[in-house]
Amino acid sequence: MFGNMKMYEPRNPKYKEYTEYKISLNEFMRSLGFVINEIQPGYTAGFLDFAKIHEQQNGWLHGGITAAILDMVEGFAAYSLVNDGQQVFTVDARVSYYNPGIAQKFYARGWVDKPGKRFHFCEGELYYINEAGEEITVAKGSSTMAVI
Amino acid sequence: MFGNMKMYEPRNPKYKEYTEYKISLNEFMRSLGFVINEIQPGYTAGFLDFAKIHEQQNGWLHGGITAAILDMVEGFAAYSLVNDGQQVFTVDARVSYYNPGIAQKFYARGWVDKPGKRFHFCEGELYYINEAGEEITVAKGSSTMAVI
Amino acid sequence: MFGNMKMYEPRNPKYKEYTEYKISLNEFMRSLGFVINEIQPGYTAGFLDFAKIHEQQNGWLHGGITAAILDMVEGFAAYSLVNDGQQVFTVDARVSYYNPGIAQKFYARGWVDKPGKRFHFCEGELYYINEAGEEITVAKGSSTMAVI
Amino acid sequence: MFGNMKMYEPRNPKYKEYTEYKISLNEFMRSLGFVINEIQPGYTAGFLDFAKIHEQQNGWLHGGITAAILDMVEGFAAYSLVNDGQQVFTVDARVSYYNPGIAQKFYARGWVDKPGKRFHFCEGELYYINEAGEEITVAKGSSTMAVI
Repeated sequence: MFGNMKMYEPRNPKYKEYTEYKISLNEFMRSLGFVINEIQPGYTAGFLDFAKIHEQQNGWLHGGITAAILDMVEGFAAYSLVNDGQQVFTVDARVSYYNPGIAQKFYARGWVDKPGKRFHFCEGELYYINEAGEEITVAKGSSTMAVI
Repeated sequence: MFGNMKMYEPRNPKYKEYTEYKISLNEFMRSLGFVINEIQPGYTAGFLDFAKIHEQQNGWLHGGITAAILDMVEGFAAYSLVNDGQQVFTVDARVSYYNPGIAQKFYARGWVDKPGKRFHFCEGELYYINEAGEEITVAKGSSTMAVI
Repeated sequence: MFGNMKMYEPRNPKYKEYTEYKISLNEFMRSLGFVINEIQPGYTAGFLDFAKIHEQQNGWLHGGITAAILDMVEGFAAYSLVNDGQQVFTVDARVSYYNPGIAQKFYARGWVDKPGKRFHFCEGELYYINEAGEEITVAKGSSTMAVI
Repeated sequence: MFGNMKMYEPRNPKYKEYTEYKISLNEFMRSLGFVINEIQPGYTAGFLDFAKIHEQQNGWLHGGITAAILDMVEGFAAYSLVNDGQQVFTVDARVSYYNPGIAQKFYARGWVDKPGKRFHFCEGELYYINEAGEEITVAKGSSTMAVI
């Protein structure tokens, strides 16, 4: 949980199981090593242990992984706020890169900022915790998710 | 090569070697299996053979991979149009998802749409070829790359 | 007409009248002084004579006007490719600013890059013509338009 | 002030006068009727009394005005957090349209979400207050501002 998160009534009483089921089918997330360990209605969060396969040309976290993880936490946040059986597809996504991703562990959270019948507008952020215990935002994302 | 591509004079006579060197350091690209096989000044293109690790929850190409590959072809297009020793960082990226990624092989191209001293504005697209031989665009990307 | 434009069959035989009618209701466009003078299926173009009310703090074209005009040419391009009676709403829009808007006359064009039943993905550009007769792109836009 | 706002030390002790001076040069803002009435370091807010010139084809607030006002509150939030004499230019802007703009008065706020030497990443929102006294967000914006 964090400050920007909004509280929603779930649309599906089994929203957690439904979202976990969709996550379990996500082969790319598994191959990347990203783990979602918190699901609330309209909110998901998880972590990534940094490994060599995540490096871009300077040995830092690849921006494409950042974009992919933001798509996951935002997309599954959307999944946690739909009716049983509905699907979610990314229509549009934007990522702004605030700081280089230099850390051994990264965290990400995604949330539905504006829910709707046809679209969920989502936001997310990927960050690490520095030695002083502060969150350093690597990237901020926003996306338009179609609910079908 | 394709219609939207613009022709530029290289800023670095060894632009191809420089870009190839940066690509060789890109561990994530290697682990994903994406291969860049064409480099022109301000342009790169490549392909991905679809595999199980690329699947999202429906068994189609994961949108996060699409975003990551667009970041690669756009970022290396930018690298192919900088001075020797300069670096490129993604500041902002957007992806619009036009069609679901259902194919056994995907292609991507990225190009510098507007070069500058401090920024390169880039665009890219990821597509597959259908049975009729037509390009089906899975996603269109645009990004702002800082040149440092 | 220009290179990037795609040719579409109109969905509404009276697409021109329908788009012109929607334009006629657009008070903001009139107050701004922007004029659309070309309508094709999935394409519109127009011009703006620069005036004092269009200035930002340096006396150049205000970026907010650029964004507004791109929204107009992209939105009416979408209107020119819907069924009779359907409406178009902007869901998401992005503008990348390539060059400062310093000229006495500006031109803009918008086109549907990927049509659909529920969405039209549109693109646009605002530009001026320099003394050498070349188009100088002030900004490039892309947007997701809902068709309802 | 509001929840998402971050508190910054001003870089310019006369940040308020400097921002007000830049605002005073903004002819388009004046012609639109948008008024900024709060300036903090990294934050500006204002309001718009809805008038006929602001209408799109349905008589609602034109999305181009929404985009323009977000550019203003975000851009002047950036101006309020630069050194004396520095300039701010929009590099990239995105707007997501959450709800139709149907009201007699609109409010907007913009803030610097991540300041930097070369860029300020800004966000903003435009909203109205419904009869129950709740804020209804018309649009959410994010932009990359170059500091020069």
